[in-house]
Amino acid sequence: VIDWAAVPMDDAGNGITRQTVHGDRSTVVRYVYPPGSVFATHQHPEEQLTVVLTGRITFTTPSGDVSLGPGGSLLVPPNLRHGARVDGDETVESINVLAPRRERSPSA
Amino acid sequence: VIDWAAVPMDDAGNGITRQTVHGDRSTVVRYVYPPGSVFATHQHPEEQLTVVLTGRITFTTPSGDVSLGPGGSLLVPPNLRHGARVDGDETVESINVLAPRRERSPSA
Repeated sequence: VIDWAAVPMDDAGNGITRQTVHGDRSTVVRYVYPPGSVFATHQHPEEQLTVVLTGRITFTTPSGDVSLGPGGSLLVPPNLRHGARVDGDETVESINVLAPRRERSPSA
Repeated sequence: VIDWAAVPMDDAGNGITRQTVHGDRSTVVRYVYPPGSVFATHQHPEEQLTVVLTGRITFTTPSGDVSLGPGGSLLVPPNLRHGARVDGDETVESINVLAPRRERSPSA
């Protein structure tokens, strides 16, 4: 079990916090985005699966914007540019899985 | 966005249903476990990250049993034997990510 309370938190900018756990074949990242926060557009070679646990967030991609609520899942192909912005007043919590394991500092 | 309503469902036994989406580097599986259901112990070479969305479920591993509720995350290393059984009366929904992509029929 990943005990998120025991995983150090780092600052992902704009008030967004991030906790990272490396597996052998994947990297798991928990994000907490405060209301109003924006995650800048970026890309990475790893495939990304995002599951939203709380709140509502819009992901921006070259093919359009998509809004996800609790339980919503998004699969971001390798090297696709994407960003995110929180919708509404609720803090967003998401779990992101990067595959393969991300060796660099994550900016998932 | 993964539109689970549009992904075909298959029978994983004991009333458990499964929907599978293959990415390039990972495979994403949504499970729905009815109350009382048990997923038999098994293993696979892929690493598995499980996120529980609803309900409560106990995962069994050689190093002990662990119970997960909504938002709980479990990282199962490659080739570790594991099984699961639903706790209580609530249907369990989970999202599992397998890395690398699972080429065989999934029994995650």
